[in-house]
Amino acid sequence: MAIFRILRVNLSTETFNEEVVKDDLLKSFLGGRGLAAYYAFKEIPRGIDPLDPSNKLYIFSGPLSGVATLSTSRVNVTTRSVLNGVYTHSNAGGNFSYWLRRSGYDGIIIEGKAEEPVYLVVKNGEPSLKPAKHIWGKWTGSATKIILTENGFPPDETKAGVAVIGPAGENLVKFAGIRFSDYERFAGRGGVGAVMGSKRLKGILVWGTRDLYRELVDKNAFMKVNNEIVKRLVTHDTTKALHAYGTNVLMNLVQAVGGLPHYNFAGTGLIKNVDDVSGELIKSKYVVETHGCFNCPIACTQITMVKSGPFKVPGEKIKYEYENTWALGPNIGLTNAEPVLKLEKLANELGMDTISLGNTLAVATELSKMGKLKLDVDWSDAASYIDLTYKIAYREGIGDELAEGDYRLAMKYNAPETFTGARGQGLPAYDPRAHKGFALAYYTANRGGDHLEAYTPTWEILSTVFGKPGKVDPHDDSPAGIDLQARLVKWNQDLFAVVDSSIFCKFENLVPNVNTEQDIANLYNAAYGWDLTPDDVLTIGERIFNMERLFWVREGKWVKDELPPRMREPIPDGPAKGHTASRMFDEGIKKYYELRGWVNGKPTRDTLRKLGLSEFEYVL
Amino acid sequence: MAIFRILRVNLSTETFNEEVVKDDLLKSFLGGRGLAAYYAFKEIPRGIDPLDPSNKLYIFSGPLSGVATLSTSRVNVTTRSVLNGVYTHSNAGGNFSYWLRRSGYDGIIIEGKAEEPVYLVVKNGEPSLKPAKHIWGKWTGSATKIILTENGFPPDETKAGVAVIGPAGENLVKFAGIRFSDYERFAGRGGVGAVMGSKRLKGILVWGTRDLYRELVDKNAFMKVNNEIVKRLVTHDTTKALHAYGTNVLMNLVQAVGGLPHYNFAGTGLIKNVDDVSGELIKSKYVVETHGCFNCPIACTQITMVKSGPFKVPGEKIKYEYENTWALGPNIGLTNAEPVLKLEKLANELGMDTISLGNTLAVATELSKMGKLKLDVDWSDAASYIDLTYKIAYREGIGDELAEGDYRLAMKYNAPETFTGARGQGLPAYDPRAHKGFALAYYTANRGGDHLEAYTPTWEILSTVFGKPGKVDPHDDSPAGIDLQARLVKWNQDLFAVVDSSIFCKFENLVPNVNTEQDIANLYNAAYGWDLTPDDVLTIGERIFNMERLFWVREGKWVKDELPPRMREPIPDGPAKGHTASRMFDEGIKKYYELRGWVNGKPTRDTLRKLGLSEFEYVL
Repeated sequence: MAIFRILRVNLSTETFNEEVVKDDLLKSFLGGRGLAAYYAFKEIPRGIDPLDPSNKLYIFSGPLSGVATLSTSRVNVTTRSVLNGVYTHSNAGGNFSYWLRRSGYDGIIIEGKAEEPVYLVVKNGEPSLKPAKHIWGKWTGSATKIILTENGFPPDETKAGVAVIGPAGENLVKFAGIRFSDYERFAGRGGVGAVMGSKRLKGILVWGTRDLYRELVDKNAFMKVNNEIVKRLVTHDTTKALHAYGTNVLMNLVQAVGGLPHYNFAGTGLIKNVDDVSGELIKSKYVVETHGCFNCPIACTQITMVKSGPFKVPGEKIKYEYENTWALGPNIGLTNAEPVLKLEKLANELGMDTISLGNTLAVATELSKMGKLKLDVDWSDAASYIDLTYKIAYREGIGDELAEGDYRLAMKYNAPETFTGARGQGLPAYDPRAHKGFALAYYTANRGGDHLEAYTPTWEILSTVFGKPGKVDPHDDSPAGIDLQARLVKWNQDLFAVVDSSIFCKFENLVPNVNTEQDIANLYNAAYGWDLTPDDVLTIGERIFNMERLFWVREGKWVKDELPPRMREPIPDGPAKGHTASRMFDEGIKKYYELRGWVNGKPTRDTLRKLGLSEFEYVL
Repeated sequence: MAIFRILRVNLSTETFNEEVVKDDLLKSFLGGRGLAAYYAFKEIPRGIDPLDPSNKLYIFSGPLSGVATLSTSRVNVTTRSVLNGVYTHSNAGGNFSYWLRRSGYDGIIIEGKAEEPVYLVVKNGEPSLKPAKHIWGKWTGSATKIILTENGFPPDETKAGVAVIGPAGENLVKFAGIRFSDYERFAGRGGVGAVMGSKRLKGILVWGTRDLYRELVDKNAFMKVNNEIVKRLVTHDTTKALHAYGTNVLMNLVQAVGGLPHYNFAGTGLIKNVDDVSGELIKSKYVVETHGCFNCPIACTQITMVKSGPFKVPGEKIKYEYENTWALGPNIGLTNAEPVLKLEKLANELGMDTISLGNTLAVATELSKMGKLKLDVDWSDAASYIDLTYKIAYREGIGDELAEGDYRLAMKYNAPETFTGARGQGLPAYDPRAHKGFALAYYTANRGGDHLEAYTPTWEILSTVFGKPGKVDPHDDSPAGIDLQARLVKWNQDLFAVVDSSIFCKFENLVPNVNTEQDIANLYNAAYGWDLTPDDVLTIGERIFNMERLFWVREGKWVKDELPPRMREPIPDGPAKGHTASRMFDEGIKKYYELRGWVNGKPTRDTLRKLGLSEFEYVL
């Protein structure tokens, strides 16, 4: 029998409680993102300010975290989003999830607000709060090291799980993130770091000796399933490319499709010299080490250094990814790797979501060029972007306005067209007019402006053969293409809701011709003696996805999915020149709602009943 | 009759008291630095930590502040130095002193420590403390503007006097300064900003309508004296050069003497391309405006901008000076104006003394090159220096060690030879082996490592003719040269103690063949009906200088003046190649002590009696 032990920490009262979730609820929501959505919906009051002490943070592992030897040490953070005011989930790799489970708990709920800054330590089931005034203000790297050494560990992020916020979280920057060990892993999106900052919680350390394998029903059967998946995984070209170049192998691929956003999505297709920030180029010039999350057979993490020049990052290693490199690179006109890596490092150390930072810098630049915002900044203006990054983290001068994020900035200066995201959150590194799957996936995502609730480029560019739902032409918005993408997005959203709740890495999904839901069913059945079918797996995912949608329904905000105006304008140049997202969205959303059993963005009563969510019908 | 009104503010008890100092004490110590030394000696307990609430800040104008139309709006800050643990005075131009006097007070004493951050407002004799939690963390420029606008002023630094600290002061960086309006004026040296930070005092605003001229005995007679001095001043080539190029007209002049320190004073004479950071070059490429302190006929302030490139300072003006440009330029191997101006701006905004910042970066670089300090930095390494500047202000990572300053850093890593200063404070922009007057002036200065208690380059390079004590060859350490410099330093120290207590700008002293002590006597006599002779003026200065020396005597620390080992090594190249400071110091100090009536760095009882300081004999 699977059980999920939750540590509930109230920072206002400095009290701890333990709760145990058992099979029934776990079979409905698993753990991670799914179980957190269920808890958050029941517990976080409607209408509150996300920075109010009544908001809560759900930091959950999942039933498969830390046991399988396939990238299963991801951790999910759910809370009322500071960016959209309603809901977000955000997850990070590394080793926190593994050490959290070994500490004796599978999840932590943070409530209330500390009087003075504190950090939480959980060692072998024993929680305690420690004063953190002396590390309030520290950047994420040094805060992590101090927390480790103060608690008897060497300053080595592999020896215990640590989560921290940086100055951005403390200063309630609306897109502050939470850094997780080991090494610059971030739950970045939705301002989860600002929620932690609002609670005056600087960090969390988790460690213990709990034997996770002893809790499995049949360890040998489980490892057999696991090993088969791992074998497929490590022998595939895509995962080999990921190991070699990291996620930034995507830079040239996305450019080739004509979907690399540039100048705040106004200049997609126009940018040249993208190769200078490509995974291949950065590998050859700047990568010094390759790492992996705990027990991961892919090990895609690329660690770089910039050792000289005006953008030198002295003595420090920089974990870098495709999304960051796009957001702080081509997105704002930078195609020289050195300032881009410097910006990534600053964002990581100061504790900000790199995507929303890039979105915000892009909106600020556009507003400046429109003459609406008094700011001396232009595209490709590395020095200004670096200056602004510090100022945002410290809310200094104009940084105080930018710290509110792209959506609020665009609205404040009466230029809503400069915001290209969804539900108050800016977009990631794919133009949905070229990668048409995202014309549905971005705008139907429950946390807004998201590329990880469904990742359609897997079928559009990474996989050359995929039987279900089939290889997809990224540009195709013919009726057949629309039908295919709507089904793909719906299926992928359901599947990934399960992945984010189990909780492991989405890169397992990159291998073509694989029945991922069957793999997941096999893992759960072996681990806990369940009898899930692949359809059961997808139904769990659908339940979770609908549960999340109910946050918006209850709040009465952004219920209906919307395409922002810029996505209806044609891409100016490149392979996707002339393409818009209009047809895919306008036609696709009808098909999508039909597939989901939704009307105007809301699940029907029937849909909720079918998914066992009747108890939440009252919000309709 | 002159009176000096002091506002005493106790931050612990939130109480205000007014004290009035009258003729007798004023005739002995004037105001500013002199009167503050007297107060501080009586009030600040021996042996305390400078960051303890029992330390006090004396922010004093002087009897001539704000009335004469010749650069008389300087303000003096005296406290127990954070760098040397004993004593410092530091003064700044701008308009604070003028607005302080118009507010109804001539000086403010800050005592105790606020519970939560506050700032002080004094309007027309009415003091109040206001909460400053919302501006704690703000950089100096924005803090100044917020304090102005919150108190009904436009965001224009000329409309009221404002003093603030930045993050460096809040974070107790040992060389944090206090910024004064208008525009990036700093009381920089000795960590006065850290003392203010330790008291949780973010800022001070002073404003009022007191008519300063009505308090003069004979305004017309006073203005006549004033106007004669101004006429001499503005027609002289030196002041014209200062107006044209600012203090950085010195860069090429000091280089020509062979006295421009480089590589932490180990490389004096070696540096090339100094012209790229000269006053002339910066004027032609980067200066956008010339300003002056309140009522100053010289107007030497050069305001620059760096509008593009990797060291662009977006949208902001940068006040720059020779000392900063040396300390953050040739001193650390930088001879490209753009990163140097960027560093100056950062230091000003974060609120740090540029000289000690440069000293500290230089010591850190040398320690790194020696392999003693693990830090990836090399000479001329602009990116690392910028990175470290942020980290020092926020005490982040290695910045926490550097925030302790050059002296403590050198001692911690067991490399005392890398510290070239005096009494715990690093040196300014002249190598005392080439500018031999400084071989005495730096090392006898009461605040340590100082170029403003006596400024011998006036006679060594700026003045071509000067009858008293005569034009001086900067390299001459013959017996005659030593005799001349000892007399010059002693006389200049006494004279400048009066200048710093009156309190006005030392640039009045740049006109050759002028009897400054006679000018000062004339000003006081016309203003307050006194009957000072030029000798009286010098005696007041000597009294003040001896009063200050007693801080060291009482503390039993650094009583005897010492020359650090590097100054005994020959300059490696250039016009002063082969010169050391040994003979000037070793022989000169004997002559100097004789002139002062001191034995082993201590005033004798006779000397104290002669100066009317008998009440302090007990410390001998």
